[in-house]
Amino acid sequence: MSIALNKLGALEAARKLQRRELTAEQLVRACFARIEQRENTVHAWTALQKQAALERAQTLDRGALRGPLHGLPIGVKDLFDTADLPTRYGSPIYERHRPGLDAASVAQCREAGAIVIGKTVTTEFATYHAGPTRNPRNEAYTPGGSSSGSAAAVADDMVPFALGTQTAGSIIRPASYCGVVGYKPTFGSISRAGVKSVAESLDTVGGFARSVPDVALFASVLMRDPRMLDLSYDGKPRIGMFRTLQWRHAQSETKEAFAQAAAILSRAGAVVEEVPQPQEHCALVQLHADIMAFELSQALAYERIEHMGQLSTKLQAIIEAGMRIGAEEHQQNLARAAEPRARVDSWLDTYDVLIAPSAAGEAPFADLGTGDPQFSRAWTLFGLPCLNLPFATGPQGLPVGLQLIGKRHGDHAMLAIAAWVHQRLLAANSPDIGASDMWPRG
Amino acid sequence: MSIALNKLGALEAARKLQRRELTAEQLVRACFARIEQRENTVHAWTALQKQAALERAQTLDRGALRGPLHGLPIGVKDLFDTADLPTRYGSPIYERHRPGLDAASVAQCREAGAIVIGKTVTTEFATYHAGPTRNPRNEAYTPGGSSSGSAAAVADDMVPFALGTQTAGSIIRPASYCGVVGYKPTFGSISRAGVKSVAESLDTVGGFARSVPDVALFASVLMRDPRMLDLSYDGKPRIGMFRTLQWRHAQSETKEAFAQAAAILSRAGAVVEEVPQPQEHCALVQLHADIMAFELSQALAYERIEHMGQLSTKLQAIIEAGMRIGAEEHQQNLARAAEPRARVDSWLDTYDVLIAPSAAGEAPFADLGTGDPQFSRAWTLFGLPCLNLPFATGPQGLPVGLQLIGKRHGDHAMLAIAAWVHQRLLAANSPDIGASDMWPRG
Repeated sequence: MSIALNKLGALEAARKLQRRELTAEQLVRACFARIEQRENTVHAWTALQKQAALERAQTLDRGALRGPLHGLPIGVKDLFDTADLPTRYGSPIYERHRPGLDAASVAQCREAGAIVIGKTVTTEFATYHAGPTRNPRNEAYTPGGSSSGSAAAVADDMVPFALGTQTAGSIIRPASYCGVVGYKPTFGSISRAGVKSVAESLDTVGGFARSVPDVALFASVLMRDPRMLDLSYDGKPRIGMFRTLQWRHAQSETKEAFAQAAAILSRAGAVVEEVPQPQEHCALVQLHADIMAFELSQALAYERIEHMGQLSTKLQAIIEAGMRIGAEEHQQNLARAAEPRARVDSWLDTYDVLIAPSAAGEAPFADLGTGDPQFSRAWTLFGLPCLNLPFATGPQGLPVGLQLIGKRHGDHAMLAIAAWVHQRLLAANSPDIGASDMWPRG
Repeated sequence: MSIALNKLGALEAARKLQRRELTAEQLVRACFARIEQRENTVHAWTALQKQAALERAQTLDRGALRGPLHGLPIGVKDLFDTADLPTRYGSPIYERHRPGLDAASVAQCREAGAIVIGKTVTTEFATYHAGPTRNPRNEAYTPGGSSSGSAAAVADDMVPFALGTQTAGSIIRPASYCGVVGYKPTFGSISRAGVKSVAESLDTVGGFARSVPDVALFASVLMRDPRMLDLSYDGKPRIGMFRTLQWRHAQSETKEAFAQAAAILSRAGAVVEEVPQPQEHCALVQLHADIMAFELSQALAYERIEHMGQLSTKLQAIIEAGMRIGAEEHQQNLARAAEPRARVDSWLDTYDVLIAPSAAGEAPFADLGTGDPQFSRAWTLFGLPCLNLPFATGPQGLPVGLQLIGKRHGDHAMLAIAAWVHQRLLAANSPDIGASDMWPRG
């Protein structure tokens, strides 16, 4: 075997499992071996169920093929309800919580043959109070948040796929910091049933894997969309390079990666153009933050009213900011997003995808928090599909990603172009090694 | 006292409670007296907590005023999670379910001083398999669904207010059949956190009371919108009378109520015009049903996969229909709703409100099911605020309501005009009696 089993990508492992060249038990054992070796450093998990996972694997190995995810071990962000594992939403309020059912997306993965091996660390209610997870590339640094454990577990080859959610930048940012593919679909594409509500007009279910086809495999199941299984693309994509008005916060590694990507993709035959900066976009970061604060202060009403003392001071401050916003102002905020949203939609009539920064730069030190979602807020507000593509390396040797943004409900086309783009970026950067070998690990 | 305490409207009771002219304990005792007298006939409740409610009432009576709902007893549809009461979602799957937290809307009501006295009957997962509730006006008939118990409990003077939800016609139809005011706000106005998800782009939280100002009182708390406390209106509303393409299904009592309302409101000074029937609307009922079936088959994935045998055959059929719809078709369905939605929005630039039927006619016999939501599907699909105004009487002596439809996020204006409209309709119909005395009851 040329590659350790736990390093197999989801799609490759799925193919071997379907051909019975690999057993689910072997794969689950390899993942747990990695977890046992590394979890004391990474702290990606809030709960693990080795025995139940092995039993499920043996059952799958003995039985008929269950579906496209047959035998694949997965991690589930601890914001998703699960019938068989504790569900704590990153909060001490729910220390002994057992919701007694699976979130719809978890049930869909299980139905297709996936094995839930454990729950991954989320920040408190998917906001900013960090859990114990460290960046697997270097444990002095944050993995990002809020889907901290899911991004770290996939980056550290503990599982080939993990479920996450994004309300501000909770998939794209940790994916960029940890060096994995993170996928936030078009708003509403994957059911949120059984996922703790944070901000209703923003919360989006997505996931992490180590390649674009790997996330697409899971999307085919979660969206009930068989198109996702074929990402072949032979056009010349029209790519809009969009620095965004947050460019002044971008660090040099991000600026370099951005310029390098434009050059590589242009040489590879893509039509690459800079998209101009619309002034109206200067309001978007604050607009998203206000909409999120209002909706969060409503969604977490029970926790605020009954358990305020058990909330972090960071979260209390967001809730208090949200409580100062009235219904009328919130409606005006929602209305103010309409015009910039329409403008971006019109760009996506001209370009197949946009490329923008995923984050300011490399991961910050862990004791500085989980980083800033500023480069994701606008896309989440607009509900557009986004993808982090790991690509470059920063001054500390940590991953730097770029963000692809696609048309609303154009997820399949975005993923097909993303696979094309990622292949060319990686080939240009490191001709001899795969994506998961780009960065050092323990 | 000229009126039994349990018959007091929410606003009137709230005022007396605020002035300490009435104790919460008196009011809770009056509600339970009514329930004890009538529940064997009406079957509105799945769980009641008399002792806890009385203790809470006594605490409120001894303490400072808690908020605008201080001391008001309410019912909560059993689709909402509650920390202190079983939550069964109308399904035997959840016979012993205890979610361990309150839905955000329930917590908001409690914070404002409301007393949750029990959970009300919902059809199975808010769809079509009926619970035991009967129409309090005549127990041979259905109360409608899915918010069956909430509508019946309010109609039967068991509580002044009850929470409900609408995904197709689950607030407007039971309100019409039971003869109460039912209010479905603009999509997204009240948090759905902790409410069982049925179809994400449709599910809307709302409620039932016996007058327009009574539902507005609760809306002020649930939407955090103090405008709702002032419904004064001194204009001459422009009203678009919209028969809808379902008119051929409307029974004579609905057609008469519709014509009578146009005449009364015109005499009262409103500008009343017929809105023409756009042909594109003929697709809306099926379009809503398809969008709901797809999303429901996703949202109830856990129940379908793990507990299919415990679902009713009706619900299994909807799920199976939903499973036959793929992601691409669903996206096309969502897109097909955009043009008719925009056209209705443009009507609401011309008219302050639309008036349409709430249901085909009086409630059907209970053994025929909970009625057809066809007159509500389009408005739920469009996310517009709607209100049922009880107004007329059918051949069996049962209530017939009319539906008011307002502008998106124009809920306050709609409620203010609705109060104006309802006053004039009731005055013209029955000059000497109040709304809750229009129909016979046990």
